[in-house]
Amino acid sequence: MTLRIIATGGTFDKHYDEIAGKLGFSKGHLAEVIQRSRITVPVQLEELPFIDSLDMQDADRQRILASVSKAAEGSVVIIHGTDTMRETAEVLGNARLDKTIVLTGAMIPYEIANSDALFNFGYASAAAQLLPAGVYVAMNGKVFTWDKVEKNRVAGVFQEP
Amino acid sequence: MTLRIIATGGTFDKHYDEIAGKLGFSKGHLAEVIQRSRITVPVQLEELPFIDSLDMQDADRQRILASVSKAAEGSVVIIHGTDTMRETAEVLGNARLDKTIVLTGAMIPYEIANSDALFNFGYASAAAQLLPAGVYVAMNGKVFTWDKVEKNRVAGVFQEP
Amino acid sequence: MTLRIIATGGTFDKHYDEIAGKLGFSKGHLAEVIQRSRITVPVQLEELPFIDSLDMQDADRQRILASVSKAAEGSVVIIHGTDTMRETAEVLGNARLDKTIVLTGAMIPYEIANSDALFNFGYASAAAQLLPAGVYVAMNGKVFTWDKVEKNRVAGVFQEP
Amino acid sequence: MTLRIIATGGTFDKHYDEIAGKLGFSKGHLAEVIQRSRITVPVQLEELPFIDSLDMQDADRQRILASVSKAAEGSVVIIHGTDTMRETAEVLGNARLDKTIVLTGAMIPYEIANSDALFNFGYASAAAQLLPAGVYVAMNGKVFTWDKVEKNRVAGVFQEP
Repeated sequence: MTLRIIATGGTFDKHYDEIAGKLGFSKGHLAEVIQRSRITVPVQLEELPFIDSLDMQDADRQRILASVSKAAEGSVVIIHGTDTMRETAEVLGNARLDKTIVLTGAMIPYEIANSDALFNFGYASAAAQLLPAGVYVAMNGKVFTWDKVEKNRVAGVFQEP
Repeated sequence: MTLRIIATGGTFDKHYDEIAGKLGFSKGHLAEVIQRSRITVPVQLEELPFIDSLDMQDADRQRILASVSKAAEGSVVIIHGTDTMRETAEVLGNARLDKTIVLTGAMIPYEIANSDALFNFGYASAAAQLLPAGVYVAMNGKVFTWDKVEKNRVAGVFQEP
Repeated sequence: MTLRIIATGGTFDKHYDEIAGKLGFSKGHLAEVIQRSRITVPVQLEELPFIDSLDMQDADRQRILASVSKAAEGSVVIIHGTDTMRETAEVLGNARLDKTIVLTGAMIPYEIANSDALFNFGYASAAAQLLPAGVYVAMNGKVFTWDKVEKNRVAGVFQEP
Repeated sequence: MTLRIIATGGTFDKHYDEIAGKLGFSKGHLAEVIQRSRITVPVQLEELPFIDSLDMQDADRQRILASVSKAAEGSVVIIHGTDTMRETAEVLGNARLDKTIVLTGAMIPYEIANSDALFNFGYASAAAQLLPAGVYVAMNGKVFTWDKVEKNRVAGVFQEP
């Protein structure tokens, strides 16, 4: 069962720029993450423009939808910023595609100590293979359907509304 | 949905002893791994004696079976050495318990660079929540039923026989 | 030969706050860094308020000077932000104390992948023990006297003016 | 001031082989370590055969001596296993070369969590630049002359005899 991984930026893929002294985006981490995970099923990685999810516009969500729509794989994991993961999930959910689409991300960037990124990526990879067609958000050990999830920004957790 | 994590040692939990200059077992890593993963469902961690799976005897497998049997949770992840993961899965599979039991581990210890441990733990945590009752091996992005899995020791991968 | 380590913040000690989604300061990393380094000479750690060195004021530098002045140890390492390391070195240099004082820091925070923090800390610890009394900046494999150093912010390196 | 780094193996450079399930040697880590340290002085890296220092023979020490002798640089850091670091230091010390030669290593391999390797490498790099000609062992924050050092294998520390 082939897995499509679509990287769109977000906290997961943030990189520290030592000249600017800030976190931003550079080369993505997913190729390294996939190799490290030693995944034995075929994987297709697609990198869309990296965006902080607070900056994500309608056009950006439509681009993600277009990528998912034309993907040959039935299992798709989307790496996305946490702040508007719900909004992108809604755009994808309303499209009612016959695929299992799982959005995930990280509270702490992959390259920073104590990051939850690799755990979430593993969790989402299983969810994308095992759940029936639909759109889901999978974060920190729990999976939500796209229309029953919100981010609690004070606690830094995802929950049912 | 509460998750039970049973740690039994294996490569995942190996620790470098700087006096002996060797990998062995010390305090387990799972408490730290669970916290790092920021899991938002209730988790019960149970640590059994840590064993290299090549050293695992019948009595050790019976102890794992006893732990799983008396667990109150319906979703169980077992951290296990890869070399005899199949044998333990068989003991558990033959017991036909009404729980979803997922064995996982790591090719590279959690505390060594480039480890697949956190990915596998995330993947197995999802599988234990999403699969129907049964016994499974979940390693490196693929899930197997207990009676259709073997480790290819030359390639370092799990596969169907 | 006892070593005094004075932590003042800077890039070295930045911490990612997952709720705010930003790098800032929290509990310092030096206690962990010292333990990890397995330093076998006596070490005294002193934590001053953590400051981004671009925000450092005269009063902050005077506080550092006061700490160094009253320190019983002859060898002092100061962990400092790189952007105004030179200015603090100048305040300390003009005080002409009879101690070996070495300022160091990091281009990438200790807790971020590929950080130079631990290397710089090791380098500065040796410099503080081996150089004659004076004030020095030690960064990325090179040591400078306090009055002959500048940060090249474009290249992200320290150099002689 | 150019720095020569000579890698000879030892705990510092151990690599986990996931097929064998053991620590051994593979591609060395020093090229990555040097880059990560962002060293701004010219550095020459020379990799000799990687050896566990308990397996090091006279011929191996003579090869190290030959490398150091013909090096153009006046500052040399040798990455070496800790168990017979003293013996190699003695061979180099008796040669009375007009260079500053510093042996260092690690109690925990560079690629394992909590490693002291990067600290020791930074410390030794400073010592090789700042000390007068001679042969030294620099480990865990302390520097020893070659004829006044021993490893306390029970405590895992270097000390004067």
